[in-house]
Amino acid sequence: MSPGRLFGVGVGPGDPELITVKATRVIAESLVVAFFAKAGRRGNARGIVDRWLKPWHVELPLYYPMTTESHFDDPPYKEALARFYADSAASIAAHLEAGRDVALLSEGDPLFYGSFMHLFVRLREKFAVTIVPGVTSICGAWGAAETPMTWGDDSLVVLPATLPLEELIRRLLPAEAAVIMKIGRNFSRARHALMKAGMAERAIYVERATMEGERIMPLGEKSDEPAPYFSMILVPGRGRRP
Amino acid sequence: MSPGRLFGVGVGPGDPELITVKATRVIAESLVVAFFAKAGRRGNARGIVDRWLKPWHVELPLYYPMTTESHFDDPPYKEALARFYADSAASIAAHLEAGRDVALLSEGDPLFYGSFMHLFVRLREKFAVTIVPGVTSICGAWGAAETPMTWGDDSLVVLPATLPLEELIRRLLPAEAAVIMKIGRNFSRARHALMKAGMAERAIYVERATMEGERIMPLGEKSDEPAPYFSMILVPGRGRRP
Repeated sequence: MSPGRLFGVGVGPGDPELITVKATRVIAESLVVAFFAKAGRRGNARGIVDRWLKPWHVELPLYYPMTTESHFDDPPYKEALARFYADSAASIAAHLEAGRDVALLSEGDPLFYGSFMHLFVRLREKFAVTIVPGVTSICGAWGAAETPMTWGDDSLVVLPATLPLEELIRRLLPAEAAVIMKIGRNFSRARHALMKAGMAERAIYVERATMEGERIMPLGEKSDEPAPYFSMILVPGRGRRP
Repeated sequence: MSPGRLFGVGVGPGDPELITVKATRVIAESLVVAFFAKAGRRGNARGIVDRWLKPWHVELPLYYPMTTESHFDDPPYKEALARFYADSAASIAAHLEAGRDVALLSEGDPLFYGSFMHLFVRLREKFAVTIVPGVTSICGAWGAAETPMTWGDDSLVVLPATLPLEELIRRLLPAEAAVIMKIGRNFSRARHALMKAGMAERAIYVERATMEGERIMPLGEKSDEPAPYFSMILVPGRGRRP
């Protein structure tokens, strides 16, 4: 028996219609649908594909071992994550070895800050893996904000707000356009960095883009409280336009 | 009669299956399908949606006034472009005023280096416009190259190779991951910048990602000749991974 194939399937930023035709076909052709989720939750990626699942699909939820993100330099946290990724890869490998195709869902795009990548590097040597790109959360955000991001020779920098303040500023300064992701408890630092880089005035705060509860406002109107996980800051470019 | 609505529709990086379900619905519900193309060509975006067009669709091709990109600082070039965008906006406005919905196609995502944006800013004050985000060419490229791009705290910079050498280097130096687009005749400069930034060794050259004639190779194996329009260079991040 030949082993199954693994598909890394981007399911887009949240709106179930922003999934690609290819992703829906791959899901329809895979017996197993795997997805990451917080313990006790269905998981956002699983919710996005709800209308494409059939009663015969085998669902394989991969539950994160912790409910809140800790600091990566904390050894027990790092070890728990490594064990989680190894166990998840083993669960998927068992299906592949039994000849079953597995669609592993990824919010946004699978190769852009995705948990999928940690399983991909553990499984790619042994199994055939196909990547199905998706609409990223950042495209979802600037689409929802109706904000053209990059014109002509503009460069764009994408930054996780988890970087130290000085590192954020160093990367913002030479850029014409910017996106700051993973805001959460780092919101104040992100705003501070944008002020230092002279970008705060044209920045836009976007929460839960393309999803229920979407909120969009100028950065200046956003309070300094922590932001939810699905939020980011956009700084549009101002490049040439004839 | 109420005016029609304008949709800025991302159609993805090239593979016709990498269009979103929402884009196919919007096309099915719009009487007019508009798209940019070089004179005498059908246009890449038009080719991507071929299977979704019906005999009753009204096609509105918008032909660029020049066949090769000139330097933007050249006044006649800039004027010709401005006239082209004004005329194109007027053609679309005529349909909207007659009550017809218009789907204006955009390769990749409509708000990321797209010609769509030039019509969007000309029409948004007068008409209702909806953005349909798409899979970008950069996601198509790293998906085709099966290359995880950003891990953990990695930042990503996206650069047009049209920037001067020193500006390319200045933006590459603080970044962990990078994409250089619009390579064309600027390929040698892009490679030079990556060497100066210490990123050339892990860089990957990708041509016509997800399309017929796709080519992927380490940057070191690419000759110094000009690259085609649909090509880019990827520098994957190497951030934390448990």
